[in-house]
Amino acid sequence: MAKRINLNADIAEGWGAYNIGNDAELMTIIKSANVACGFHAGDPNTMHRLCMLAKEQGVSIGVHPGFNDLWGFGRRRIQMKPVDLEYMVAYQIGALQGMARYSGLKVTHLKPHGALNNMAAEDEEYALAIGRAIKTVDPSIVYVALAGSKMQWAAEKLGLPLAREGFVDRMYYDDGNLASRALSGTVLKDAEEAARRTVRMVVDGEIVSMNGKVVKVEVDTLCVHGDEPTAVGVARTARAALEKAGVEIVPLTEMELPGR
Amino acid sequence: MAKRINLNADIAEGWGAYNIGNDAELMTIIKSANVACGFHAGDPNTMHRLCMLAKEQGVSIGVHPGFNDLWGFGRRRIQMKPVDLEYMVAYQIGALQGMARYSGLKVTHLKPHGALNNMAAEDEEYALAIGRAIKTVDPSIVYVALAGSKMQWAAEKLGLPLAREGFVDRMYYDDGNLASRALSGTVLKDAEEAARRTVRMVVDGEIVSMNGKVVKVEVDTLCVHGDEPTAVGVARTARAALEKAGVEIVPLTEMELPGR
Amino acid sequence: MAKRINLNADIAEGWGAYNIGNDAELMTIIKSANVACGFHAGDPNTMHRLCMLAKEQGVSIGVHPGFNDLWGFGRRRIQMKPVDLEYMVAYQIGALQGMARYSGLKVTHLKPHGALNNMAAEDEEYALAIGRAIKTVDPSIVYVALAGSKMQWAAEKLGLPLAREGFVDRMYYDDGNLASRALSGTVLKDAEEAARRTVRMVVDGEIVSMNGKVVKVEVDTLCVHGDEPTAVGVARTARAALEKAGVEIVPLTEMELPGR
Amino acid sequence: MAKRINLNADIAEGWGAYNIGNDAELMTIIKSANVACGFHAGDPNTMHRLCMLAKEQGVSIGVHPGFNDLWGFGRRRIQMKPVDLEYMVAYQIGALQGMARYSGLKVTHLKPHGALNNMAAEDEEYALAIGRAIKTVDPSIVYVALAGSKMQWAAEKLGLPLAREGFVDRMYYDDGNLASRALSGTVLKDAEEAARRTVRMVVDGEIVSMNGKVVKVEVDTLCVHGDEPTAVGVARTARAALEKAGVEIVPLTEMELPGR
Repeated sequence: MAKRINLNADIAEGWGAYNIGNDAELMTIIKSANVACGFHAGDPNTMHRLCMLAKEQGVSIGVHPGFNDLWGFGRRRIQMKPVDLEYMVAYQIGALQGMARYSGLKVTHLKPHGALNNMAAEDEEYALAIGRAIKTVDPSIVYVALAGSKMQWAAEKLGLPLAREGFVDRMYYDDGNLASRALSGTVLKDAEEAARRTVRMVVDGEIVSMNGKVVKVEVDTLCVHGDEPTAVGVARTARAALEKAGVEIVPLTEMELPGR
Repeated sequence: MAKRINLNADIAEGWGAYNIGNDAELMTIIKSANVACGFHAGDPNTMHRLCMLAKEQGVSIGVHPGFNDLWGFGRRRIQMKPVDLEYMVAYQIGALQGMARYSGLKVTHLKPHGALNNMAAEDEEYALAIGRAIKTVDPSIVYVALAGSKMQWAAEKLGLPLAREGFVDRMYYDDGNLASRALSGTVLKDAEEAARRTVRMVVDGEIVSMNGKVVKVEVDTLCVHGDEPTAVGVARTARAALEKAGVEIVPLTEMELPGR
Repeated sequence: MAKRINLNADIAEGWGAYNIGNDAELMTIIKSANVACGFHAGDPNTMHRLCMLAKEQGVSIGVHPGFNDLWGFGRRRIQMKPVDLEYMVAYQIGALQGMARYSGLKVTHLKPHGALNNMAAEDEEYALAIGRAIKTVDPSIVYVALAGSKMQWAAEKLGLPLAREGFVDRMYYDDGNLASRALSGTVLKDAEEAARRTVRMVVDGEIVSMNGKVVKVEVDTLCVHGDEPTAVGVARTARAALEKAGVEIVPLTEMELPGR
Repeated sequence: MAKRINLNADIAEGWGAYNIGNDAELMTIIKSANVACGFHAGDPNTMHRLCMLAKEQGVSIGVHPGFNDLWGFGRRRIQMKPVDLEYMVAYQIGALQGMARYSGLKVTHLKPHGALNNMAAEDEEYALAIGRAIKTVDPSIVYVALAGSKMQWAAEKLGLPLAREGFVDRMYYDDGNLASRALSGTVLKDAEEAARRTVRMVVDGEIVSMNGKVVKVEVDTLCVHGDEPTAVGVARTARAALEKAGVEIVPLTEMELPGR
């Protein structure tokens, strides 16, 4: 059987009169959409629109919960009680399940947004709080977690289905962790190089760290961005290279995942 | 079989650090709670707390959607596109369904809040928009509608289960419509009088209008308030009088309702 | 002395991560900017940026207060107590005065936004509430009011400096009132026609109504839009035609205005 | 001349339909009010009401800026760019200046709220950002800073008038820094003990640390709380003890302060 991989992106992050991002184009590249749910971005209208579009294009949908920080677009780190965070995530799952009824789609995964994703990757309490929300509202929802992060640990601990996430356009440390965006050169702008690295990651299960070390990784889904001018081009090139290498690009619902 | 009636109240209307209302006391009087869902009031914490309390006390829970107007507490009339309103209501239904999973309770009714309730009682477009949201997200949810209002009309038109609502502490016009709060004397403060009128409404299906005219009414649920000093006393007295008259006070889930 | 006119536009209506409108281009056409102040749009960052830009380009700045309705972008009609509205406007004036200190500019006019502008044009209470806020916070601020509206009446009644506003791209009724956007053909898309009408309005003090009637008008400022593809072109053409006709385009601070 | 001290408290922290705190009682104890300005709490109505009350009671008013985190009541730590924070503070200063015009009072001090106060006490960037906002909008505004904190350092560095703050009901470390609320016994509930310590701090310039060490301190203002049942009683007792010891309780406007 052909190797399979999922591509995911953050989507539907407008709000009211405001638009942002490049939903229409991203939706032709990815197979799973992380839908903003009204806390860091997104509103009932954008959620509705995206669910209908996902239905049309065979893209699976997931919750993209963020901090309740519309002004900061969910990119500011906020310290809060894990239990408060848990309920905020549960609320956002329910809200998307409600909106998804218009499309007939089921909400099948969850990936945290921005600063929440970064904090939950490092913080056991946050990672578990998100996992408990999933487990309570719908334990069949796949927890999309940076490979090797505390989120992966939490998903495993709670017995949740898990999708380990890699990046098509980012560099890694020797221990397999994602290198900080703040370091120069850690975001790849060269589409061909990103594509070569992506194929190796998926086909051979290997990444080459910033220091040139070969590290073994297992990823189920690759994150693609739309917020920078070069990002969409990088994503498109990486996808084409994967297909050329015989890899099938599928929704998360068609991946074999740990814990499912 | 004994006559049955439901008592409902708006509940869980705090937000963040802020508390309002008299939830603890109201929850001992009512049998169905209208839970604020984050737009005019309410947040994931208050929703969680109320669902757990409802489970404990045998109270059924419903969505209490409002305009997205936290500052105005949902009491300001807002003109908006019906389809935008519809999606806002669908979102709020989903959000409460998500939070309700903590308690194991099912969300079984919906009653609009404040200005939205007032506008939807008069405006077909708003009344239908709310109904369409119910129909899409969960058509088994009971539409709680002021008896004789456009909401009742919309519920019937869409084939939704319906609970016709009356008031224990309000006066009515000759045509059976609720008299405006703005008119002096239309809110009853005298608990004994309110109790007598309530029993007559439930047992005999009659109200006496402001002009003394006897009007036939059918109500399935009575609205009780907690936001004024005298309101809780009125509610408690009315409930006691109903019980003394042999009327059983039950959750909406135990009422026989039109359309169900 | 050459005839003078002011051109104004709504500006700085982004918020957080969100941008909207065409500030950079509009700022080269207009001479007075209506700065969104955080209620319907605008935040401290956009206010700061616009004030600095206005300083650089010789554009005068004014408050552009809106309803506290970020989701609705201030375009939804909201019913509220006039005194609550008054304080909201006073707050927004103060906020812009604070931010304007970075540029050294003085806040010299006020024009309401969207639905608030429409409602205050018709409603004496709203028009007066806005006027009282101006009068309390800084009575030298010019009230920009649709010519002939209740806002003009309120400014005159309160003794506030007044700028009567006309439109470069809109049709009028026989009585000199602005024709509703909802009517087909009332928004001019033909830049040449709009320019001819604008010159006649400013030079001859005349408009030709939808029915062909010539109506006398006095305007001190002309509103220009940036939110539609054709609007900026219309504005630029109208401005060029005015200059060709010998009309000087000046900030509101250089206009001779009633009440100042 | 009699020794003088100021007492300050956080005030006007309601929002919309929500009330919180004990404004009426606190206003009879303090001489300077820190007015919430709409970001963590407070709205134009509460600001107006408080300014009028302050005028009536001879209390001076100051800005009480917080993070833009209404849900968290400004109590959650948020990481953001210092320049964004600076403009947010500038905006809040301007907003209160606008509202204060109703009372004829001048805004004469600024004290950060909650998590912002805690973070700025430790973080030079935050402390300076707040100081720059003051310096730009009105450099005569007194920066109220925890004695010995980074805020005191920033005020001195920027040449701003400074009020060094102490607490009537809190314990201190040996180095004169405030002991964390999280440690048991660091919040004094015994009114008599708090009063004795307060008099010694003001009259003798001495505090006794948690370990019994006598530490020299200079304070210009004492913070009083209203959010706990015992706090108002502690504040009242401390104030009476100060007056009995011959200390005059005055607004910040009547204190001799460093940098003014």
